[in-house]
Amino acid sequence: MSDMKIILGNRNYSSWSLRPWLVMKHLGLDFDEIVVPLFEGDFKEELLKHSPSGKVPVLKFKDQEIWDSLAICEYLNEENPDAGLWPVETEARAIARSVSYEMHSGFFNIRNDMPMNIRRTIDGFSPSSLCQEDINRIIEIWTSCRQRFGQSGPFLFGQFSIADAMFAPVVSRFNSYRIPIKGVAADYMHAILTLSSMEEWTESACGEEWVIEAVEL
Amino acid sequence: MSDMKIILGNRNYSSWSLRPWLVMKHLGLDFDEIVVPLFEGDFKEELLKHSPSGKVPVLKFKDQEIWDSLAICEYLNEENPDAGLWPVETEARAIARSVSYEMHSGFFNIRNDMPMNIRRTIDGFSPSSLCQEDINRIIEIWTSCRQRFGQSGPFLFGQFSIADAMFAPVVSRFNSYRIPIKGVAADYMHAILTLSSMEEWTESACGEEWVIEAVEL
Repeated sequence: MSDMKIILGNRNYSSWSLRPWLVMKHLGLDFDEIVVPLFEGDFKEELLKHSPSGKVPVLKFKDQEIWDSLAICEYLNEENPDAGLWPVETEARAIARSVSYEMHSGFFNIRNDMPMNIRRTIDGFSPSSLCQEDINRIIEIWTSCRQRFGQSGPFLFGQFSIADAMFAPVVSRFNSYRIPIKGVAADYMHAILTLSSMEEWTESACGEEWVIEAVEL
Repeated sequence: MSDMKIILGNRNYSSWSLRPWLVMKHLGLDFDEIVVPLFEGDFKEELLKHSPSGKVPVLKFKDQEIWDSLAICEYLNEENPDAGLWPVETEARAIARSVSYEMHSGFFNIRNDMPMNIRRTIDGFSPSSLCQEDINRIIEIWTSCRQRFGQSGPFLFGQFSIADAMFAPVVSRFNSYRIPIKGVAADYMHAILTLSSMEEWTESACGEEWVIEAVEL
């Protein structure tokens, strides 16, 4: 048993859980997992047993706890200052934080209209104009980061960073909902979808028994 | 002219702008300000001249830029590691980040139903049940942080931290909308409302000419 434990929602639906999990896998950490099936029975009560905010993910370590996906990532960055979780160069680092925090506090239309559902492919999805604005902004972010900072590898800032973890659920959604993406942004999506940790998460999601009818479009 | 500049929305309404501004004032930084009046004329076009995300606040420094309120705060913390912008002790620091990030990505009902409007007092406001749930969770956070970590001063973690900057607009809203708050949480609100930087912001907000009819309840 590890002294680090993360409480997750079910893999198929919990986009927030995926984010810090990818960073923890990238760091090669040894950790235990507890999965709370969301939207099933008394899941809100079950969540409150593990999480003061009633939300996942939560990281427990050394009798302490930290919740919220991006707060966990910043904690992991502080604990592993040489792991390059944020780009080292000041300008890239400032932009990496900016786009990650923009993701954290925004893009409500994508969140509401396109819930993550890794197992499914949804044909015939037509985004509302507000949702399309969100999609366009995401494509602009990916393209601009790849072009300005992506020389050393296939990720937004070259090497894998917290920014990639923050956008990974959006990559999954664009893939599921068949959003037409081309060029640099499409290449970036391929890099995320074929990341070994992403493949591991996806495989586990497909093995989960839970199905939420309500979000199956 | 300083080499640091922050782009803000008008003080009366822009809760996101208030947050990093309070942290910059706390650090005693020398910086210039540009205020873009929100919801006036072609304000979206004006915003895009300053801000890649089309949102405020944005911090410009040394030909670089970083946007999003909390990303700016994390940048300032990294640049000023000895300023105590997050609590030093590990457990307090983990909780301070958790509640700040919970604020950053959530509390939609408070955000939607109770827009910040520093100049006004709104009588007879009755929160929806979802809004009341948000209010209750905020009171729980304030009370718990003050009781567990607040020994060394009047703020959430004793001394002023980024967590206080993140919750300051909510203090202003609870005050404007006359939400009944008692005990530890009420004392905390008093500490924020009488902070000299908060008083400076409020005074400037009252001096602004812009008025948005739509949010005047």
